[in-house]
Amino acid sequence: MENHKIIGERLHSWATDLWPINRSLTGAGIRKTLDYLGDLLPGLTVHEVPSGTLAYDWTVPAEWSIRDAYIADEEGNRVIDFQKNNLHVIGYSDPVDQWMELGELDKHLYSLPDQPTAIPYITSYYARRWGFCLSYNQRQTLKSGRYHVVIDSELKSGVLNYAELILRGETSEEVFLSTYVCHPSMANNELSGPVVTTGLAQWLQGLEKRRYTYRIVFIPETIGSIVYLSKNFEHLKRHVIAGFNITCIGDDRCYSYLPSRSGNSLSDLVAQHVLQNTDPDFKRYTWLDRGSDERQYCAPGVDLPIATIMRSKYSEYPEYHTSLDDLNLVTPAGLEGGFTALRRAIEIIEQNAYLNIKVLCEPQLGKRGLYPTLSTKDSGDQVRAMMDMISYCDGTRTLLEIASLIEEPFWELLPVVEKLVEYGLLERKYVVF
Amino acid sequence: MENHKIIGERLHSWATDLWPINRSLTGAGIRKTLDYLGDLLPGLTVHEVPSGTLAYDWTVPAEWSIRDAYIADEEGNRVIDFQKNNLHVIGYSDPVDQWMELGELDKHLYSLPDQPTAIPYITSYYARRWGFCLSYNQRQTLKSGRYHVVIDSELKSGVLNYAELILRGETSEEVFLSTYVCHPSMANNELSGPVVTTGLAQWLQGLEKRRYTYRIVFIPETIGSIVYLSKNFEHLKRHVIAGFNITCIGDDRCYSYLPSRSGNSLSDLVAQHVLQNTDPDFKRYTWLDRGSDERQYCAPGVDLPIATIMRSKYSEYPEYHTSLDDLNLVTPAGLEGGFTALRRAIEIIEQNAYLNIKVLCEPQLGKRGLYPTLSTKDSGDQVRAMMDMISYCDGTRTLLEIASLIEEPFWELLPVVEKLVEYGLLERKYVVF
Amino acid sequence: MENHKIIGERLHSWATDLWPINRSLTGAGIRKTLDYLGDLLPGLTVHEVPSGTLAYDWTVPAEWSIRDAYIADEEGNRVIDFQKNNLHVIGYSDPVDQWMELGELDKHLYSLPDQPTAIPYITSYYARRWGFCLSYNQRQTLKSGRYHVVIDSELKSGVLNYAELILRGETSEEVFLSTYVCHPSMANNELSGPVVTTGLAQWLQGLEKRRYTYRIVFIPETIGSIVYLSKNFEHLKRHVIAGFNITCIGDDRCYSYLPSRSGNSLSDLVAQHVLQNTDPDFKRYTWLDRGSDERQYCAPGVDLPIATIMRSKYSEYPEYHTSLDDLNLVTPAGLEGGFTALRRAIEIIEQNAYLNIKVLCEPQLGKRGLYPTLSTKDSGDQVRAMMDMISYCDGTRTLLEIASLIEEPFWELLPVVEKLVEYGLLERKYVVF
Repeated sequence: MENHKIIGERLHSWATDLWPINRSLTGAGIRKTLDYLGDLLPGLTVHEVPSGTLAYDWTVPAEWSIRDAYIADEEGNRVIDFQKNNLHVIGYSDPVDQWMELGELDKHLYSLPDQPTAIPYITSYYARRWGFCLSYNQRQTLKSGRYHVVIDSELKSGVLNYAELILRGETSEEVFLSTYVCHPSMANNELSGPVVTTGLAQWLQGLEKRRYTYRIVFIPETIGSIVYLSKNFEHLKRHVIAGFNITCIGDDRCYSYLPSRSGNSLSDLVAQHVLQNTDPDFKRYTWLDRGSDERQYCAPGVDLPIATIMRSKYSEYPEYHTSLDDLNLVTPAGLEGGFTALRRAIEIIEQNAYLNIKVLCEPQLGKRGLYPTLSTKDSGDQVRAMMDMISYCDGTRTLLEIASLIEEPFWELLPVVEKLVEYGLLERKYVVF
Repeated sequence: MENHKIIGERLHSWATDLWPINRSLTGAGIRKTLDYLGDLLPGLTVHEVPSGTLAYDWTVPAEWSIRDAYIADEEGNRVIDFQKNNLHVIGYSDPVDQWMELGELDKHLYSLPDQPTAIPYITSYYARRWGFCLSYNQRQTLKSGRYHVVIDSELKSGVLNYAELILRGETSEEVFLSTYVCHPSMANNELSGPVVTTGLAQWLQGLEKRRYTYRIVFIPETIGSIVYLSKNFEHLKRHVIAGFNITCIGDDRCYSYLPSRSGNSLSDLVAQHVLQNTDPDFKRYTWLDRGSDERQYCAPGVDLPIATIMRSKYSEYPEYHTSLDDLNLVTPAGLEGGFTALRRAIEIIEQNAYLNIKVLCEPQLGKRGLYPTLSTKDSGDQVRAMMDMISYCDGTRTLLEIASLIEEPFWELLPVVEKLVEYGLLERKYVVF
Repeated sequence: MENHKIIGERLHSWATDLWPINRSLTGAGIRKTLDYLGDLLPGLTVHEVPSGTLAYDWTVPAEWSIRDAYIADEEGNRVIDFQKNNLHVIGYSDPVDQWMELGELDKHLYSLPDQPTAIPYITSYYARRWGFCLSYNQRQTLKSGRYHVVIDSELKSGVLNYAELILRGETSEEVFLSTYVCHPSMANNELSGPVVTTGLAQWLQGLEKRRYTYRIVFIPETIGSIVYLSKNFEHLKRHVIAGFNITCIGDDRCYSYLPSRSGNSLSDLVAQHVLQNTDPDFKRYTWLDRGSDERQYCAPGVDLPIATIMRSKYSEYPEYHTSLDDLNLVTPAGLEGGFTALRRAIEIIEQNAYLNIKVLCEPQLGKRGLYPTLSTKDSGDQVRAMMDMISYCDGTRTLLEIASLIEEPFWELLPVVEKLVEYGLLERKYVVF
């Protein structure tokens, strides 16, 4: 395992590179983003789906492109400039090129009085309008008068893009990782998602062996997961045994868990175990707090075993969906913590097994050098965790269940399991799905 | 739905009419009461069961009648007069006509030192005795001396009466409503019961259609329900899918729930949902707090799905079984609240259905005008309840279960269900028993 | 039932007799102890198992004997003398006869700085060493200089002993009681165990009839239970329906419960019911707090239904495994409380039965003189427990389950059950395993 700090720094540098690209549901920004990730991930394949394609109850929207946008005063000074911050324009804005009075313009301006320095992030994918977002403070400085309002955008038939990476394992059972790449310059939601996912994909590519096959997708949120499901549903339903929606995984304030719809999938058990043993104060959300692609992956009848491990959850931190969600909020340490939690979750899925002790009564560990030989008042404490684990190895429980039951991290018990297996005391049967 | 306040006033006026009638387990009072209710409820049939009839472990007692009763002083002044308050005589008192000293009389007097203004309500159905009840304050004023003690009562072979109303529905499955009419002048326990039940029966008679058949009985408590069960047990066991014992439903202090013996019948789930969404502070009693006819309807081996929705529960309010349980304690607003809770419970039983969303992934509500088209930071909140509901419509859950799960009232979700069914997005299958 | 206080005094006097004997895993001390108990328990059979016998993962150790041991100063004064306290020598110490400087001797001394007056209890069964235990205060008084260190012990092939008493009952199903006799002079852990077990065995011998067969063993801890299991496993697995490991049952500070591995055996339910109704503040431990022979009896694949009822649990009281665990800590009242709890547990196992009320609806108890005949506001309270019990007698629940459900002691409901059975109202079916 390479130095943790280095991983965090590397993930943060990727986020910094991706920051200025103007992503949206469709268009040049998402393609540029996928190209960048493709350079990091050999084998990443970019797909395109034509506008107008039906996907369940939805239709792939027209492709949106934007070259420039600004509001200029009568002297020609750009008081709002899309080139300076791509949050300034409502996503999927219609084109406009007009002179208008401030009073008229004002109907197209959006700001947040409670967060006066923040530019809000707003989109209007499925209803036609145009608008500008700006900080409440800046809005207060706009003088009455005429303004030249320009959005040089275009909405026309094109494609929706997403990328997919398949890493084959020993079995055809799959672990599914999904993250999204449709938001402009915001860091926790969303750049943390694709960079941590890329880090995990590189780590998985480097493993000597993988028990499971990994399916990793970079998609636009909502329409992307719906389109992906509509093309792969039967395969996913048959093969996916666990998975995570990877989002909001880069700040360093807390850890959060959002369950699958059933709440008791393998992914849920793993996520809770990892977070409980990473930070016992992690926040537990419920299905009623959902808000990202688990809405599709766990919809009634879809019901893939997908849970979510996050740092500060979308909608729950003040900078969410504003220009304040930036690369200061997301830190190398925050990214590294999120990466590690997800890496551990995957390691548990790979290593989980039913455990069966092979002798009746407690094994005599002393003669194998596994037990202190002097019985004093306190000596029991030293090997307590090992004995507790053994006491549950009855063939009906997995290491994950036992670790949760005795409140010890899976990753600390695993070496003990290896040693007991080596001594012939323990039988291990990997979980078959 | 007619004006709520009007319903409460009407129920209270019926209670006022019924107040002076001297009800008991048997006799003229109960017949007079059933006659009055028969005028309000076309189709109400009065039954009679002869004294001495066996019903399980019980025997229908002799019929009791009382013409007059009093205690007069030596001057002939009636110091206690049954004509003024029918609680003054112990129910089922033997006849007496004697002069006696206060010391002797005192053994037959009952009062409540802790509630000095209250006349207690006492009966002695199954052991022969006589006695008078009076307020503790009045008892203190009795002067020593001789008194003329008269109870002009009679206990002889006769009948026990009860009334029954059957309202046919589309199916032969039945909802069973039971209330009792055997207490003299007390308002919450008991007049609130028969008047709210009568109000519900009139409302059910007025419905355009009823999915279920309604069986509504007005009986004397305990012996009445035992007799009714002994005559109808096999039919009830085969057909009753839910039901309520209706008692103590007229004051306006709180709402209370007492479960069936199993605690998990449809009636229990419905009662809890209605009360949770009427007043989250409602009181939850347990089976160990039982005390009315659920003792028979839910006895081992009987086990009908009968729960109880109340306002202030019998035995739990200070005025219980005293002259203070009067028509000031029971109010139009209190009766209306009790009526509404039970009406909603019945509406839920009628309307409950398994819900199945007919598309995979979330439906695109925007294109149907069901979703705000501008995605801002807060827009999600507006349709949250609808989306939460849809997220559970997987065909395995009823609207009642979903409403309880997402903590929204059934009656607020029902119109949304209707709209989604209309749009062809939702499939509804009524519960079949 | 003889006077409780007399039982406590008798148990304490047995403990006083057994106190000075130097018990260990094997050897003369355990044989002397079993001889003493054999005089109290006709039919008690002592078994011997040769050193070197294999038992699952374990081997019966060599037999240890010790004649004398001391540390003497240059003047020949015994500053530590095994004759004065048999805790002074580490159990299974190798023999030694040497002069050495205090500095060298110090490596073989053990004391407890936090409990400066206590001599610790230490053993080294499975690794060869020698050593002395002494109070920290005494250790501080040792002057530098040369000491004569003598342990006149011997470790050689011999036997391991245990004793067994079988009391036949009406069925071949067995209740298994196990206690241990391998600790030198300590009172709560351990003498309370064998003396309470002996008291229970005498009481069981005196019973007119026993539904179940009782298997009662006095063994050395750990190796003794492993050896016993290895010789009797198939029989125990087929016949044992409940049982208790009897230890730490003599002080009078609290009651404690430690579950079987499954936590839901009959023994667990009984133990919790008895303690809940003996002292609602009893301490509930979990399987993770285990530490005595339940480790073997409930090991994966063994899984006998054995729970533990204690007073102050081993490892949890300050005097544990020191010379402070003496016959002042263990009192007649403490022993009597422990004895009574276990006696009640056994009585429940003997008397537990499924109960089925034989009439539909509530029985009419008034006509049988079981119910007050005057119905006043409070009369219901008097027979509440009886009516609550009857309300659960549906043939699917045992008296133990019902008593726990209605929070009444089994032993107070049992006479009511007897009376109702006598009246023909209740059917009782003893539990068949």
